[in-house]
Amino acid sequence: MQTFWKNNIAPKAPYYAVIFISEKKENVEGYEEMNEQTMNTALSLKGCLGYSSVPGNFISYWDNMNSINEWRNHSLHKQAKEKGVKQWYKYYHSLICEVKHSHEFFANGFK
Amino acid sequence: MQTFWKNNIAPKAPYYAVIFISEKKENVEGYEEMNEQTMNTALSLKGCLGYSSVPGNFISYWDNMNSINEWRNHSLHKQAKEKGVKQWYKYYHSLICEVKHSHEFFANGFK
Repeated sequence: MQTFWKNNIAPKAPYYAVIFISEKKENVEGYEEMNEQTMNTALSLKGCLGYSSVPGNFISYWDNMNSINEWRNHSLHKQAKEKGVKQWYKYYHSLICEVKHSHEFFANGFK
Repeated sequence: MQTFWKNNIAPKAPYYAVIFISEKKENVEGYEEMNEQTMNTALSLKGCLGYSSVPGNFISYWDNMNSINEWRNHSLHKQAKEKGVKQWYKYYHSLICEVKHSHEFFANGFK
């Protein structure tokens, strides 16, 4: 899936990326609702620039580390992380990164 | 899918990540062979630390920017990129990132 940029504006590097690679358990009751709620809340925050999402890998983009830390400490996000660890995930790998270069390619006729 | 670390060693941040988000066209003749060949070649390079792979998102991890630049200029990689742009991809988003924090979680019984 193509990267979604808020207000349709691709930011110029440097910016920040939070990568979340995950494998879920078989019983993930409540996951979909929480996933939608956290994504909408993150996107509504001023510092969130957009996201890239495919099954098993979610990347959110942020303007700076302060915005990431605010979201890390957000009560809804904390609640989601707690449930994730206890109920939903058998594995995850999370990374906080500074994006140094970013490039998007659109083949003719596919934009 | 869980992140694969070369020699089973998860590196400590800081290290580097190259993210490749993509959407392929319907006809991708030659893609699978090239994909396997480039992945094996990248992994054989000294500076490559491992990778995370799910359909539509491939992330490779590197010890530093020099290693990334060597791989960028590798003849096989250049050939793959040329074919990718001409034949295989309708979209891609590539990012070069410095990993500041990295954390892996394994639920009980799933490591």
